[in-house]
Amino acid sequence: MSLPQGFRYAAVYAGIRKIEKDDLALIVSDTPAVAAAVFTQNRVVAAPVVLARKNLAASRGKANAILVNAGNANCATRTGDQVALATIRATATALGVKTENILPASTGVIGVEMDGGKIVDALPALVARLDAACFDTVAAAIMTTDTVPKTAFAEIKSGRKVARIAGMTKGSGMIQPNMATTLGFVMTDAVVAPALLRSALKAAVGRSYNRISVDGDTSTNDTVAVLANGASGVKPTAKAFEAALTEVLESLARQIARDGEGARKLVTIDVEGAASEKAAEQIARAIANSPLVKTAIAGSDPNWGRILCAAGYAGVAFDPRKVDIDMQSIAVCRRGLAADFSEDELKSKLDLPDCSIRFAIRGTGRGRARFWTCDFTKEYIDINASYRT
Amino acid sequence: MSLPQGFRYAAVYAGIRKIEKDDLALIVSDTPAVAAAVFTQNRVVAAPVVLARKNLAASRGKANAILVNAGNANCATRTGDQVALATIRATATALGVKTENILPASTGVIGVEMDGGKIVDALPALVARLDAACFDTVAAAIMTTDTVPKTAFAEIKSGRKVARIAGMTKGSGMIQPNMATTLGFVMTDAVVAPALLRSALKAAVGRSYNRISVDGDTSTNDTVAVLANGASGVKPTAKAFEAALTEVLESLARQIARDGEGARKLVTIDVEGAASEKAAEQIARAIANSPLVKTAIAGSDPNWGRILCAAGYAGVAFDPRKVDIDMQSIAVCRRGLAADFSEDELKSKLDLPDCSIRFAIRGTGRGRARFWTCDFTKEYIDINASYRT
Repeated sequence: MSLPQGFRYAAVYAGIRKIEKDDLALIVSDTPAVAAAVFTQNRVVAAPVVLARKNLAASRGKANAILVNAGNANCATRTGDQVALATIRATATALGVKTENILPASTGVIGVEMDGGKIVDALPALVARLDAACFDTVAAAIMTTDTVPKTAFAEIKSGRKVARIAGMTKGSGMIQPNMATTLGFVMTDAVVAPALLRSALKAAVGRSYNRISVDGDTSTNDTVAVLANGASGVKPTAKAFEAALTEVLESLARQIARDGEGARKLVTIDVEGAASEKAAEQIARAIANSPLVKTAIAGSDPNWGRILCAAGYAGVAFDPRKVDIDMQSIAVCRRGLAADFSEDELKSKLDLPDCSIRFAIRGTGRGRARFWTCDFTKEYIDINASYRT
Repeated sequence: MSLPQGFRYAAVYAGIRKIEKDDLALIVSDTPAVAAAVFTQNRVVAAPVVLARKNLAASRGKANAILVNAGNANCATRTGDQVALATIRATATALGVKTENILPASTGVIGVEMDGGKIVDALPALVARLDAACFDTVAAAIMTTDTVPKTAFAEIKSGRKVARIAGMTKGSGMIQPNMATTLGFVMTDAVVAPALLRSALKAAVGRSYNRISVDGDTSTNDTVAVLANGASGVKPTAKAFEAALTEVLESLARQIARDGEGARKLVTIDVEGAASEKAAEQIARAIANSPLVKTAIAGSDPNWGRILCAAGYAGVAFDPRKVDIDMQSIAVCRRGLAADFSEDELKSKLDLPDCSIRFAIRGTGRGRARFWTCDFTKEYIDINASYRT
């Protein structure tokens, strides 16, 4: 699929990571783009998040570029604010735009001072490499414990013309405080008004990034930013744009859950029949975060009692005698009791890389939600028992 | 330490577990005891919990005995209510007391029908074995994935006389839905009024069982029950009784956290300087439940950034620049920034079986809370990936 027009990308190794692998990247719109972003809800917020939020306010939602580094979260550091500001100021000078029009983002270890000099020194090489074709290079540069780069694309047609959306993300958990973080960057050449961009992003994130979990930890650096530069000349309807943006973010979010640290399986959880969408989401989240559900999936164990139990502590009222549970489309629980199913058949279906759980409450409730998580394996422990040292 | 007077204990193998190991136990007070209990907050509640709650209400807080089985949680089963009632009815007949004066409790797999006939058949042998010295036999019979039995004792002196408290518990997580459960049984020969017994239990559980976490899952069968038969003739003050009961429950709760599935380390978390005790507890709980903190402890990695980050998503407002963090009494973070410490020294101290985390907010807040958890190792995954099958 083609990329949106009017964007260029570049990545270099600036020496922030210990291993020699691209760790600094730049995404530039050829013209000032309408920009919107959502950030972590953590009380502990990294310096680049504080600055990006400030810049978006100062620029009234306009941005020319995103400067992102991997290898250091620039969080809980003495020099964090200065380093973040100095690096985007140098970037602004190199690009000939205002400092407030650069959005910074960082991912990596928390509590270690970041050497901004390395970034400033690498900028000339970075800017020289800017190219419309380097999208995948940037998607690879922002990876930390990710095992694969994650990208997603959509088109919005308008007569014979077309607007495009291209997104990239990193994160091997929605949510990991130390190697901090989920970052997501979405570029579109659609013509989108600032208010629509913000509302569409909020709605799309609510049904994508906010519906995945790897380990239940919320990072200090989470950022999902969208740049809309209008280069296609196509002005989609609000509904069409939100649908296309949701498609891209949902794909990116699913890719994060599938690539969760140590994970071998993507688990899709559908909750139906709750009193509201919020109640359905709460139940789905409790199931998705239960280490016992996730280890059972890792072991291909059709342990539906753990699913029912996790729903029971989700903080949502329901009658257990009205609950039906399916795993891999096989009925395992009907009206809160064991259904008659073949353990062997289901166990072999649970060995597949895609697992589904359906949790349905009989009755009149129309609240439903879909949520993604991954299985929980020993490799998660391996990766995290010694990430820092 | 001596046991409280006027209680007898027994255990047998009734054939509920697959392996031949005691799975049915009885605790009897020679006289009707004042009884109080707290139960799981899960919406999905096992049949014995429903019945125990009902009996305590019907008897106005009097009980003669506790009948407990391991190997089956008697939860989410067609015949659960009948089986629970039939087994305590038979027990009441065998002991010559009222059915409402027997408290049932179960622990084991969810969603599998329990054969009450096996329990009824085993009752004569069980009752014949009742003996004041069989306390430890019962503590062993209620174990599931526990690696050690867990007991705790306290004395309350009153002049030359003494009242005693003896408690036993099981659970290799506070909180495990499938092998369901934490059970705790506490016997005392102190003279305690019903209202005091209830309030003291509530307070003591609030600072013990409700302050531990292994995996964040809340079971369907959790029960902590206290029987006070007054056999010592000692009537302690409310303060003295609550303190002694808290001491016993805290010890039992700590033993559960230390024996958490796959755990090698007990982690004690102290939060200080929060706005309230509740706020302190919320922060401590978020740290205790963070898989990233727990895997770092498993790897003896002094990764304080993960502790700060977990506190950040606890839902409590605080200024990160006022946070001090110590691990094993070594300052690792001061005012939200890295402190100067020896990684090698701290890493070797984190290899010890007891780890401490202190999270202190500078300022005037007087809320403090202590919380216990365990490290998170690959063995947790081993144990839980195939518990059922």
